[in-house]
Amino acid sequence: MQKRLSIVLIETDLDRAQPIMDGLRGLGAHDIHLISDEAGLARRIAAFQPDIVLIDLANPSRDILEEMAVAAAPMDRPVAMFVDRSDEQLTRAAIEAGVSAYVVDGLRADRIKPVLDAAIARFHMFQRMRAELAASRAALEERKIIDRAKAILMKARGVDEEAAYALLRKAAMDQGRRVADVAQQLVLAAGLLT
Amino acid sequence: MQKRLSIVLIETDLDRAQPIMDGLRGLGAHDIHLISDEAGLARRIAAFQPDIVLIDLANPSRDILEEMAVAAAPMDRPVAMFVDRSDEQLTRAAIEAGVSAYVVDGLRADRIKPVLDAAIARFHMFQRMRAELAASRAALEERKIIDRAKAILMKARGVDEEAAYALLRKAAMDQGRRVADVAQQLVLAAGLLT
Repeated sequence: MQKRLSIVLIETDLDRAQPIMDGLRGLGAHDIHLISDEAGLARRIAAFQPDIVLIDLANPSRDILEEMAVAAAPMDRPVAMFVDRSDEQLTRAAIEAGVSAYVVDGLRADRIKPVLDAAIARFHMFQRMRAELAASRAALEERKIIDRAKAILMKARGVDEEAAYALLRKAAMDQGRRVADVAQQLVLAAGLLT
Repeated sequence: MQKRLSIVLIETDLDRAQPIMDGLRGLGAHDIHLISDEAGLARRIAAFQPDIVLIDLANPSRDILEEMAVAAAPMDRPVAMFVDRSDEQLTRAAIEAGVSAYVVDGLRADRIKPVLDAAIARFHMFQRMRAELAASRAALEERKIIDRAKAILMKARGVDEEAAYALLRKAAMDQGRRVADVAQQLVLAAGLLT
């Protein structure tokens, strides 16, 4: 039933790492990859393609926290961060950096799994919203480009709007491409020609 | 420096409520409003206009969890939920219901404040994304409406696209309204007239 999770654990303190890894293994046969130094962090995390990154920081500064968060790439995968202490500014910085779960003084092996579940669920919800936003912006941009291409055709060919759109659509069908792509090409070409 | 938070605490177990309230008061002079029964929950929460809603559920079912989350209106204000136990499905349901913080087995008075900070920061981040999405969708809808209005004017007045847009813009300036609103009015009127 439960999916086997691949987890990158970032933990510089090996005494703290062991119980976390044991705890995670006890909760299910997860693949855990421990990274305990910061050299080439972003690249090494990405190479492992984890389902989630778990970062444990005993006493983070804002710089370290943001550096870690960026390396873990919270736009690409869920990131859960455990810290021993925090304040309002630090907490806000972690959330704004895109961390899906931020837990203060709550690192206990048996409580990690629900945090990971929540982080994964929150990440997917956030991804859906980002995809909706990207789609909505793309639709607007495409409409603008098509409008500009139509205007160019109306002027160049002396046709009305419907005829201009028909020309774009025919070109798109002939080339097996999307109307928006043909429009984009036309706008670029017209920019070169005039 | 710190803002005084107004908090609604939903807690049916009064033995659990007292230490939470004491703990919150110890962390700062917050206004805390305790609701310990579910009658008219949504209305009573809304009437208090809290900065955050804190829900404590010892052992939630999915129905109760979702009912509580809906009553707390997580689109309108941050909602933090504390439960004693959970599973993957329940955790996912809570996140999908819009809860800004979901904490399993972590209710300790001195650990509540960082959770509330994180929930508030996450809520504001989510609100910003929702606002961006709404603005982007509105811009697309407005563009569609303006295009339809232009097409109507081009046909009715026998003018080209630029002239049609100039007519819309002049009407908007004369009426002290937005071009999109005038376009909307025109499309509705044209629908009635033809």
